Amino acid sequence: MTDQTLKNAASGVLSLEAYSPGMPIDELQRRLGVSNAIKLASNENPLGASDKVKAALAAAVARENLALYPDGSGHRLKQKIAAMHDIALDRITLGNGSNDIIELLGRVFLGPRRAALYSAHAFAVYSIITQAQDARAVVVPARPATDAQPYGHDLPAFSKALAANPDVALVFIANPNNPTGTVLEPREIEAFLTATPSSVIVALDEAYFEYLDAALRPAMRAWLDRFPNLIVFRTFSKAYGLAGLRVGYSLSSAALADVLNRVRQPFNNNSLALLAAEVALDDQDYVQASVELNARERARLAAALQAKGLTVLPSQANFLTVGFGRDAKPIHQGLLEQGVIVRPLASYELPQFLRVTVGTQAENDRFLEALTVVLKAS
Amino acid sequence: MTDQTLKNAASGVLSLEAYSPGMPIDELQRRLGVSNAIKLASNENPLGASDKVKAALAAAVARENLALYPDGSGHRLKQKIAAMHDIALDRITLGNGSNDIIELLGRVFLGPRRAALYSAHAFAVYSIITQAQDARAVVVPARPATDAQPYGHDLPAFSKALAANPDVALVFIANPNNPTGTVLEPREIEAFLTATPSSVIVALDEAYFEYLDAALRPAMRAWLDRFPNLIVFRTFSKAYGLAGLRVGYSLSSAALADVLNRVRQPFNNNSLALLAAEVALDDQDYVQASVELNARERARLAAALQAKGLTVLPSQANFLTVGFGRDAKPIHQGLLEQGVIVRPLASYELPQFLRVTVGTQAENDRFLEALTVVLKAS
Repeated sequence: MTDQTLKNAASGVLSLEAYSPGMPIDELQRRLGVSNAIKLASNENPLGASDKVKAALAAAVARENLALYPDGSGHRLKQKIAAMHDIALDRITLGNGSNDIIELLGRVFLGPRRAALYSAHAFAVYSIITQAQDARAVVVPARPATDAQPYGHDLPAFSKALAANPDVALVFIANPNNPTGTVLEPREIEAFLTATPSSVIVALDEAYFEYLDAALRPAMRAWLDRFPNLIVFRTFSKAYGLAGLRVGYSLSSAALADVLNRVRQPFNNNSLALLAAEVALDDQDYVQASVELNARERARLAAALQAKGLTVLPSQANFLTVGFGRDAKPIHQGLLEQGVIVRPLASYELPQFLRVTVGTQAENDRFLEALTVVLKAS
Repeated sequence: MTDQTLKNAASGVLSLEAYSPGMPIDELQRRLGVSNAIKLASNENPLGASDKVKAALAAAVARENLALYPDGSGHRLKQKIAAMHDIALDRITLGNGSNDIIELLGRVFLGPRRAALYSAHAFAVYSIITQAQDARAVVVPARPATDAQPYGHDLPAFSKALAANPDVALVFIANPNNPTGTVLEPREIEAFLTATPSSVIVALDEAYFEYLDAALRPAMRAWLDRFPNLIVFRTFSKAYGLAGLRVGYSLSSAALADVLNRVRQPFNNNSLALLAAEVALDDQDYVQASVELNARERARLAAALQAKGLTVLPSQANFLTVGFGRDAKPIHQGLLEQGVIVRPLASYELPQFLRVTVGTQAENDRFLEALTVVLKAS
């Protein structure tokens, strides 16, 4: 019966493994009976949502009519994004998280006779949407472990792979990349854009942009006017502290935004999410505090991990990827038993590494103590 | 430049017209300079969200950490849905509104060599997802205007069309249907399910279920165990009063739910939406009050419209579809100028009809007064 029912299902979907999110704290506590677990597994903002956002949401719940559909055009939020980037409203696409933007791109540009190109060790959602669309994946090997950006994107290799695979319709570049934390220099990206034909869409994923050192921030706004095939996306889930509300956006040509908006669900962002993002965008003090906490604690955490003789990949994001020189699975398990959730990276073909989100000072201390216990025991 | 950029875009998307939502009140007020406009255009609940939901949201904004990702499995909400329908958790799929469920079905079951089948004058999103997936649409003519269910679904004609179109992978049945308000008798649906091969997915859209007379409510729960190709979906956007928060869900076989969940975005429902739906499901007093208000006002409104000599389609939903016997566009425009937003149906091939949501008593009076002015002037 069941086989018959799924007879017409897309073959890519039938062989797809869904995205596996970080384990929620509830679940760990349920499983292990611990009560003070911490989660450093999903690169969330350890400061929690900003007080201004919380106050605005509390007022909105009382004042706004939640029985009405959201503003499907997200007009007020788009006005704020447009002002921030000095860009026209019709070049903005709002997503239910930047995941939604990635999916819209896949649905428009990927299919059975088209391919997506991305790096090894890049964000899992690129491969998920590629497979869900029955498209081919061209996975470019990453830079060597000995590179200054170990396991990072190799853009000259991207260009070679593009030339060899004329069916590539969409290229994903994550900068900084998750889960390696590696970056590209702006001139590397610009050279790649210059060399890439305009029939290939280049998706620059800047989910972790706010954590980048100022000198490394790409001049994407100027590029958007030069390269009509460029689309850049940002998220409110990281430095803006709103992962729970699901808001991301992209900037592109108006023509590209137009096709994405045709497949976008008419009410993909809910009313409270739209409002929270508007307020968060205005609360740059919160973003600044988040970025400063991250920079300070990331440096401290990296030094402490290196002092334990561990490999720490250079990170320009809000996490550190830590190498143990052996299978990291028992260490991941040991940390869980200590009530600390971090992210295993075997599914990213980095089985000797774990990814740990930079938390508050107290959370990072707790992680370091737990790690000391686990490493001693193993 | 632009043409080259979209060279690889899916052809269905390039010719797609996006869903056109009801005009927001803000927009009308901006356009016409009126200040007391009412919107009866999107079949929203005129009572606003329930007080229990508002209280729970206000508490959650203070208490919950919105910087954390939502529970991607929606565990607590699924437990409540499972208890309500006496169904296993793994047979539930949560959507960002039931629009999301329709889209997931399309992404799994529709493509260039597959077709979707649905009725003329059925919900616009069925045709949008069909075209976005580059699939073929088999649109079955509706029942005649003289039928007891005028412009309603003709299931015997569905069966004939299915036999003639072996590429149909997915059938949409909306019951009640939007925008006609028409219904099918349970035995008609059951006969159709019995006659349909299990390789064809039958999607029963019950967005307006709660407004159905008790005698007309399909026994879908029993059918789900008999027909593995059946999927039923419901929404929190209508009788539950949460259109602004975007939550819908489907019930199906576990196998079908499994494939839908593979393409579902891992965090498609945001944290506040999940919570609001949990509380709303428990607040059946609010649902009951909504349904009673609707039944009372729908009857009163229908009688008043008929007294004006207008055609009113029999409705089992929270709206009335009103025929004017001539192009309804000038009447729609006249109502806008009176500050009353209703829904034109030309895009549903019902150009002589307008759809009006059943509002509060005061809103309905306001609509009737405005209509009187408009009809006198025209």
